Amino acid sequence: MDERALVRRIKRLSAGQAPGVVLGIGDDAAVFRPADGEDLVFTTDMLVEGVHFERDSHRPSDVGHKALARGLSDVAAMGAVPRFCLVSLALAPWCGERWVDGFYRGLMGLARSTGTALIGGDLSHSDKVTCDVVACGAVPCGEALRRGGARVGDLIFVSGSLGASALGLKCRKGAAWRRHLRPEPRLALGSFLRETLRATAAMDLSDGVSLDLRRLCEESGVAAELDGSLPIYPGATVAQALHGGEDYELVFTVSRGTVVPAEFGGLALNCIGRMVAGKPGSVSWGGQPLAALGYDHFRK
Amino acid sequence: MDERALVRRIKRLSAGQAPGVVLGIGDDAAVFRPADGEDLVFTTDMLVEGVHFERDSHRPSDVGHKALARGLSDVAAMGAVPRFCLVSLALAPWCGERWVDGFYRGLMGLARSTGTALIGGDLSHSDKVTCDVVACGAVPCGEALRRGGARVGDLIFVSGSLGASALGLKCRKGAAWRRHLRPEPRLALGSFLRETLRATAAMDLSDGVSLDLRRLCEESGVAAELDGSLPIYPGATVAQALHGGEDYELVFTVSRGTVVPAEFGGLALNCIGRMVAGKPGSVSWGGQPLAALGYDHFRK
Repeated sequence: MDERALVRRIKRLSAGQAPGVVLGIGDDAAVFRPADGEDLVFTTDMLVEGVHFERDSHRPSDVGHKALARGLSDVAAMGAVPRFCLVSLALAPWCGERWVDGFYRGLMGLARSTGTALIGGDLSHSDKVTCDVVACGAVPCGEALRRGGARVGDLIFVSGSLGASALGLKCRKGAAWRRHLRPEPRLALGSFLRETLRATAAMDLSDGVSLDLRRLCEESGVAAELDGSLPIYPGATVAQALHGGEDYELVFTVSRGTVVPAEFGGLALNCIGRMVAGKPGSVSWGGQPLAALGYDHFRK
Repeated sequence: MDERALVRRIKRLSAGQAPGVVLGIGDDAAVFRPADGEDLVFTTDMLVEGVHFERDSHRPSDVGHKALARGLSDVAAMGAVPRFCLVSLALAPWCGERWVDGFYRGLMGLARSTGTALIGGDLSHSDKVTCDVVACGAVPCGEALRRGGARVGDLIFVSGSLGASALGLKCRKGAAWRRHLRPEPRLALGSFLRETLRATAAMDLSDGVSLDLRRLCEESGVAAELDGSLPIYPGATVAQALHGGEDYELVFTVSRGTVVPAEFGGLALNCIGRMVAGKPGSVSWGGQPLAALGYDHFRK
């Protein structure tokens, strides 16, 4: 059972939903339309000690920052503006007040700088620290950027450079390690993609571009041809850039002819290929099939 | 560090919130007003293997049912109508497809019967199964039932009978055990309290009336005098009824003079006391101070 099969299973088991759900399971976030006005997007992300972070190497404020950053990265990928979050936290026996304070300080630092209100949550205990953050953002009705909107002929772009997080996780020092610990959700870029570039699809890179782009292509029913160029973080390997997760950059597609600036707010925007007709979800890189080796919790 | 101190700490650390938040940390659910129209209420609840359920004694469908029931019970306590939920689930190594199917079947059974759409979530892995459910409900603007609305002179009621879940957890058989495994959120009652009785405050009983009523009194700035009568589940002890958690009945207050029916939809509504002036949060039972011995994750 891999994650994809599991998502399909849950999608099937939850079929036949209530009205108001504009977009349900399977995208970066779900969209619910409560009434006239804006659409709210919701996303939820778990962080588990020993899986997503280590007690020894991750400061509590880094854990708090990252717990929210993951959700806000999904909000950014929808082209939405953050509204609020809820945080569920199961504490381990070793957690003291200092750890809890540090966690929420890190989380609230990012929350405040992005206009995200923490409006609730749940507290529990467990053997290992486990945290789940729900983030909600808003977009004008019907304008959320989805994974499924890419069309044959669209150009594929990524923001920033890739592989920093995987490199940081390996070397555990310097700027790459800080990028791993403190990812910055690309919120301003997400709004720019929606409002100005009118991107046809967007997604955040949490599990590696090889796997994430496959997901985007599957949802859009297209194949991707990557030309073999890739903005690689200085010092990172090609494999880290292709398959390393947690870069939290955005991958997006635009219609041919769209003028995409070389950078936005200091963040490079690079064209890495285009959408083509073919087996939905298949991705080639420099003419060869690209294996989706990105991170999957359930792959055996 | 107990749960109350922890909540206060988080409340302090998250002070200074964004607009739109009608009600934040500290109630059964948070309220966000996205635009004109309805208020949405959000609540999130974790379920941890070995803490909230055991692999051997709880069927996966029971775990799924309960995971959502806890959130919907909070939605009911706000007087809201369920809209949607998001489910984050970390699976343990022992979880197979059957367990996952059973979990979602149990959850979706309750979701469908209550009109709750499952619109998203997250999947992860951990040593122990850990699940976090976000439930969202809607109420007319400004009408959510809060914990903080009780006034001196108000009468205190509880629905149903208390102690069934604690009794079930002990004897592990019969109707009491089923009540423990499959709590029914009191959604119809919640709407009735809001629309018809105009309850001044309401809360669901998840940690025991002794502790939960103290929380309600603290929020309302009043004291409670319980007359010593209590609707006790057949076979349960007084201690189980007072301090046993997870009954998921509603405790609510109404202004003096409000006509409360003896039952609603087959569910008994019993007056158990009244709000009085006094130390906020203090509760007496039959003339004696009542210790808040209900469940607290963090009490040493």
